[in-house]
Amino acid sequence: MSSSTLPEPPGPPGEFELIAALKRLIDDVPAAPDVAIGIGDDAAAIEFESGVQVMTTDTMVDGVHFLRGKAEWADVGWKSAVSNLSDIAAMGAVPLHALVTIGVPSNVTVIEMEKLYSGMIDAFSQFGGSIVGGDVVSSPVFFVTVALTGRAREIDNMPIILQRDAANPGDLIGVTGSLGGSAGGLRSILEGIEGADADMLKRIHYRPVPRVHEAEALVEGGVTCAMDVSDGLMADFEKICTASDVGAVINASDVPVPTELKTLFGDDAVQMALTGGEDYELVFTAPFDLMDRLLARHRGTVTHIGTVVDVPDEGEHVIALDSAGNTIELEHRGWDHLESK
Amino acid sequence: MSSSTLPEPPGPPGEFELIAALKRLIDDVPAAPDVAIGIGDDAAAIEFESGVQVMTTDTMVDGVHFLRGKAEWADVGWKSAVSNLSDIAAMGAVPLHALVTIGVPSNVTVIEMEKLYSGMIDAFSQFGGSIVGGDVVSSPVFFVTVALTGRAREIDNMPIILQRDAANPGDLIGVTGSLGGSAGGLRSILEGIEGADADMLKRIHYRPVPRVHEAEALVEGGVTCAMDVSDGLMADFEKICTASDVGAVINASDVPVPTELKTLFGDDAVQMALTGGEDYELVFTAPFDLMDRLLARHRGTVTHIGTVVDVPDEGEHVIALDSAGNTIELEHRGWDHLESK
Repeated sequence: MSSSTLPEPPGPPGEFELIAALKRLIDDVPAAPDVAIGIGDDAAAIEFESGVQVMTTDTMVDGVHFLRGKAEWADVGWKSAVSNLSDIAAMGAVPLHALVTIGVPSNVTVIEMEKLYSGMIDAFSQFGGSIVGGDVVSSPVFFVTVALTGRAREIDNMPIILQRDAANPGDLIGVTGSLGGSAGGLRSILEGIEGADADMLKRIHYRPVPRVHEAEALVEGGVTCAMDVSDGLMADFEKICTASDVGAVINASDVPVPTELKTLFGDDAVQMALTGGEDYELVFTAPFDLMDRLLARHRGTVTHIGTVVDVPDEGEHVIALDSAGNTIELEHRGWDHLESK
Repeated sequence: MSSSTLPEPPGPPGEFELIAALKRLIDDVPAAPDVAIGIGDDAAAIEFESGVQVMTTDTMVDGVHFLRGKAEWADVGWKSAVSNLSDIAAMGAVPLHALVTIGVPSNVTVIEMEKLYSGMIDAFSQFGGSIVGGDVVSSPVFFVTVALTGRAREIDNMPIILQRDAANPGDLIGVTGSLGGSAGGLRSILEGIEGADADMLKRIHYRPVPRVHEAEALVEGGVTCAMDVSDGLMADFEKICTASDVGAVINASDVPVPTELKTLFGDDAVQMALTGGEDYELVFTAPFDLMDRLLARHRGTVTHIGTVVDVPDEGEHVIALDSAGNTIELEHRGWDHLESK
C-alpha cells in the first residue's frame, strides 16, 4: 500500500493481496482536500498554503533487509536514511525533517545504536534533512523506521512533483547512474568474493547514494515522470506502466552497469542490472527533445535506456531486449531481499 | 529520545542511557532554523510560512505493548492511532496526515490487518487525521508504527503550542478526564476479572480517547503548558518539572478516578491513578485565575489536582500527598507495559 516503497517481492504469501486490501480500506475514506497524492507513489503529497509537502516512510528489519553481524551499524543507519531520501528525490523534492523509530532488543548496545545514528546523520548531512524526533521501543527483533518529509521544488511558483502516472507512449526512458551494483555487492558478500572489484560493489550495496541532486536537475529540465529503483528496474518500471497505462521496451545493452559488475559476473551483469534492487537510481521518462537536452547537459549522469510504448495486447508491460532485438528471459523480475540467505 | 513518547520505564537495561546518547548525537548537528521544537516534547514543531507543523511517531510491538491473541486487532489499530493523536493533542494541535508502517509475520492474515486498519481509520475519523501512505514489511514480530503530522492552532494569527517547559511555581495543575482506568482495565484482563465494572475499565484500556477537543479548549482558554499522560501521572509530570525546572505537589485525593476503579480495586485505585499509564489524558498547568475560569467553564472535564512549586532541595520533583497531607509512598512511579505478563 506504500506511498513510499512497496514491500519486497516475493514477500510472504498474500502480501500483495494484503496491500491491495488495506489500500481499498483507506480509499473508502474520503480523502482530505489537501491530499494531492495519496497511496501509490514514492511519497504522499500534501498541499499547503506555502507549497506542497511530500512525506514518506521506510523500514529496515534485521534478518529481512540486513543481517546483524554482517552489516556495519553505520551502514544500516546510512541506508535507512537513504531509502527515504531516495523516495523524496523520486518526487523531485527537497528533504526536510525526519522522525526515527528504533525497535531495540535487550542485547543491542548503546555504542551500536550510536553508530546507527551516526550513519543516518551522515546521510542527512550530505543530502538534506534532519532528525527532529522519533521513538525508542523494546522489540524482540531490531528494526528502524524513518519517516521523512520534503518540500516540492517550484518553477515559476508552481510546485513540480515527479509522479509515476505521467509517462506517455513515445517518451524515452532514462536512468541516472548505473544499475546492478547493489545486487553485485550483496552477491559478493553472500558468496564471500574478495578483492577490489568486490569491495567497490559492496560499497555500492552498503552506501547507496540517493539522487537528490540529480532529481533537482530533472525537475529543472522539465521532467514530470520519475521514480526510484529500489526493487529492480523491471519491477519498478512496471509500476510506472501501471500508473500511466503504458508499456515499455528496455534496451538491455544500453542499461549502464558498473565496470566491476561486468568483470566479476560477466553475462549475469545484465540480469542483475535489470532486476537487482536497492540501487536507488532514478528512472524517468521524457519526450525526445527533452531527453536530448538532458543527455547533452548531463552526459555521464543520465543514460537513455528505452522507450515508452502503448500497453501491449498480451504479456508483460515491460520487456527487455538484447542487442539483437530478442526479448530477454528474466529469472525473476524483482528483488528478493537476502534471497540467498 | 522521543519527541513523541519516551519509552516505557523501566525498559531494557540502558534504555535511558541509550536515549540520552542518541539525543546528544542529534543535538551535535546544528538544528535547521525552522525547527522550533526538536527532541524532548510530545512532538516536534516546525515553522512554515503558513504556520507551525507538529509531527510525532509512536510504535506498538506485539509482546511489548499488547498481546496478539488477547487484544482485538481493531483495538490495537485504534490505540496505535490514539497514542499519536494524543501527542498531537498534547501540543494543542489539529491532527493532519498519517504514515502507517506495519511489520508483518507470515502468520498474520489479511483479515486481521483489515481489522487493524479499521480500528485506526475509526480513530482518525473521530478525532481528525487521515492515512496518506506507509510501508508494509516482513518482520518476525508484528509491529505497527504511525507517524502523524498536525497543525498548530492559532490565536490572533499567532501559533500556540502547548509545551512542557512553560510551568511556573505557583501555577495550579489540572488534568482532563480521569486517571487509572487503563491500568485497571489491564489488571482486570491479566487477573481475569469479569463483570460490568471490569468491562468498563477494559474498554478504557482498549479504546482510550485522545483529548484533541479538550486540547482546543485549553489553547483557546490560554493554557501554554501541557503534556499527555501516557507513562503515568507521576512519571510524566516529572518531565514537565525537568523541562520547566520546577517541582510539583499532587493532591492524590483530588485526582479523578473512574468509579469502577474504586469499586474493584479499593485503596489501590489511588496508586493506579498516580502511576498507571495509557490514559492519554492531558495534564496542564495554569495560573490561578486561568485555572479558575477553566474549572468554571469545563467542570466535569477539567479537575484541579495540585500545585507547581519550586524545585525541592532534595528528593523527587513530584510528590503526591494524601488527604492528611502525608507523602504517599509509591510502589513505582511509572508504567511498565504488561508488567504482570
